[in-house]
Amino acid sequence: MTQREAALAGKITPAMKRAAKQESLEPEVIRQGLAKGSLALPCNRRHQGLKAIAIGSGVRVKINANLGTSPHDVSLEKELGKLAAALEYGADAVMDLSTGGPLDLIRAKLLADCPVPFGTVPIYQVMVEASSLEEVKPDWFLDMVAHQAKQGVDFVTVHCGVTRAALPLLKKRVTGVVSRGGSFLTAWMRCHGRENPLFEQYDRLLEIARQYDLTLSLGDGLRPGCLADATDRAQMHELKILGDLTRRAWAKGVQVMVEGPGHLPLHVIRKNVRLQQRYCDHAPFYVLGPLVTDVASGYDHIAGAIGGALAAWLGASFLCYVTPAEHLKLPEIEDVIEGVIASKIAAHAADIARGLPGAAEWDLSMSKARRALDWETQIRLSIAPRKAKHYRETSQAKDDQCTMCGRFCAMKLFDNKFDNL
Amino acid sequence: MTQREAALAGKITPAMKRAAKQESLEPEVIRQGLAKGSLALPCNRRHQGLKAIAIGSGVRVKINANLGTSPHDVSLEKELGKLAAALEYGADAVMDLSTGGPLDLIRAKLLADCPVPFGTVPIYQVMVEASSLEEVKPDWFLDMVAHQAKQGVDFVTVHCGVTRAALPLLKKRVTGVVSRGGSFLTAWMRCHGRENPLFEQYDRLLEIARQYDLTLSLGDGLRPGCLADATDRAQMHELKILGDLTRRAWAKGVQVMVEGPGHLPLHVIRKNVRLQQRYCDHAPFYVLGPLVTDVASGYDHIAGAIGGALAAWLGASFLCYVTPAEHLKLPEIEDVIEGVIASKIAAHAADIARGLPGAAEWDLSMSKARRALDWETQIRLSIAPRKAKHYRETSQAKDDQCTMCGRFCAMKLFDNKFDNL
Repeated sequence: MTQREAALAGKITPAMKRAAKQESLEPEVIRQGLAKGSLALPCNRRHQGLKAIAIGSGVRVKINANLGTSPHDVSLEKELGKLAAALEYGADAVMDLSTGGPLDLIRAKLLADCPVPFGTVPIYQVMVEASSLEEVKPDWFLDMVAHQAKQGVDFVTVHCGVTRAALPLLKKRVTGVVSRGGSFLTAWMRCHGRENPLFEQYDRLLEIARQYDLTLSLGDGLRPGCLADATDRAQMHELKILGDLTRRAWAKGVQVMVEGPGHLPLHVIRKNVRLQQRYCDHAPFYVLGPLVTDVASGYDHIAGAIGGALAAWLGASFLCYVTPAEHLKLPEIEDVIEGVIASKIAAHAADIARGLPGAAEWDLSMSKARRALDWETQIRLSIAPRKAKHYRETSQAKDDQCTMCGRFCAMKLFDNKFDNL
Repeated sequence: MTQREAALAGKITPAMKRAAKQESLEPEVIRQGLAKGSLALPCNRRHQGLKAIAIGSGVRVKINANLGTSPHDVSLEKELGKLAAALEYGADAVMDLSTGGPLDLIRAKLLADCPVPFGTVPIYQVMVEASSLEEVKPDWFLDMVAHQAKQGVDFVTVHCGVTRAALPLLKKRVTGVVSRGGSFLTAWMRCHGRENPLFEQYDRLLEIARQYDLTLSLGDGLRPGCLADATDRAQMHELKILGDLTRRAWAKGVQVMVEGPGHLPLHVIRKNVRLQQRYCDHAPFYVLGPLVTDVASGYDHIAGAIGGALAAWLGASFLCYVTPAEHLKLPEIEDVIEGVIASKIAAHAADIARGLPGAAEWDLSMSKARRALDWETQIRLSIAPRKAKHYRETSQAKDDQCTMCGRFCAMKLFDNKFDNL
């Protein structure tokens, strides 16, 4: 039984209990969300040591950190370091997007070290292992999903909504297809003159997913890669298909999340969230950023935090982090940390705005510590204690002062503690 | 004649022409905005070499970078370095908030090097030069404004709206008064049992401002210092007074901006912007952040970029940057750079969302370069070319590849350029 099937049968599983506890909710709330589909609880029964979390409405906004090698940069040690850093700084889930080195081994090692939901994009391994596009058989796409599910992966991005009907809609785009999986599939379809196997054999995919309780993250292979392409016909065409596929998955007891942009100007984020909710019946919405400008190369984590905060406030449930290296190179450990922190800030700001019970308590504790000039507590409660501590230590501040205002501290002035200015 | 008086008399000044050119607008549009009060054009007639810019509705969102010494850290060289960095990275205005060292000299040196509008908070110098609160005479506050205006300062933060009537409203606050000027004034009022001189002698202040065409930035001395205090009675009490003071300034031909929070949860930013517009008749709104969470110490520039982007999209016109050092220490040059870039991203995202003509063209050019795998142009068009270049150079990428996707580049796959994967 999948978590969804259990929920539909009225059963509360240990994973539901654990997820509920983490949110200070009754397990019944989690069960209801899973039955409705508004929550997902990615948890492959083969993933040893997983601490399950719920993703969707009514729970804390979650963030995902992408890791993985490239053919230019293959180091298991480095990837394990990125995983540890992502976890330390608060990533709720990680995805291994490796495309270089021994992929199965890297995945197994990362998975063994990973207590949070672990995702992949199985098509990458198809791409890496194929010597030509021509030789790739339709079955390969699904077999690879089964292969990785068997390894214990909790959720997979599958670009099932990229269909031949969408190809003519892509012609006028500024940046075409920017999803690697999406572009591989469009190339494959054009090369073979056939439909996307992940779409055509979707029932078989659902069987695989059901067998392992693999959560499908329906990928937005045609997501806009720039502001100019946002909310265009290709994106909407795919989103509607993802809505149909969501309902088909739910009918088979399979858990679903739906992926979204990408690049979106601030003023169309609300529309995008609403359309996803309408077309996909409030399945958890997993957004990549969204980036609110195309020009922030080197600082895309900030453009992504702006878009992510707004999207999550308006209803997105899962934020894929963006690192400062986005659009330029694979992230190093420092980039992973910067990306996780930026996403955490966005997710937490959205939790507060959504009125999630308890979310603003963290801020209240911090502000009370600030008022009391209690530096130790302020540092401990900071989103990134290490950096806060470093700033404090390099400030040459004495006692309860900070060097920002020195003897002109507003807090102290307000308290009338000063005798002599 | 002040710029406002000229505008009301139907005259177009060289400063209006220059500001218009920078926005690709007709000078008449600037003149009308100045006459209406929806635009400010801070430009002290004594500021040599100033390149005037317009701040307000219908023009690009502007950003301000704060500089300045503290008693712990006095180095003119360092402040000049911060100024140069702020200008290099695109600050539209700067404020010298120095509280350490020879303040007049530091201000004169910075002003001489500053081609953008230059602001100060004159009350800081009153605080620094006073040996006790008791000895501070009411006239000192206004005399100091006159003194700095004479030096050529273009705009000053004056906390005219902090009045005795607000004091009882502050009792229940979590963080009390967090504005240094605001807390000094409340302390002064309590110590002397008198009304705020900047409020009581506002007509004299307007005369000083009119004489130099000094733009008044009506400070929010009672701004919330944490989410829990946001939009409370004290803040609203002050904002209403600032609305009255705005109209009184306009009636005397004086230019005005109105300052705003501070700390605001995402979901109350809209309300705050709307209230400012209503109470202050659409005078340019100058916000500090706003920070959408209290817990981002070490990363407050990101919390501020999220809030600033949303506030500016909804109508704020001027974003005071927040640096990663906020709440911990004075910013170093690297912090200034990070703060300016984060604010620039927020301002640009808002320009796009506001539909400012031409704003999205930058993004379109970037995306075309991205599509063409033209790395040189991408780096040149990045918000921070130096960092983008560094990432590109350390990526070990060859030719037109990037190491993010390597041979699995979506752009190339989509083009079907590959022969063999």
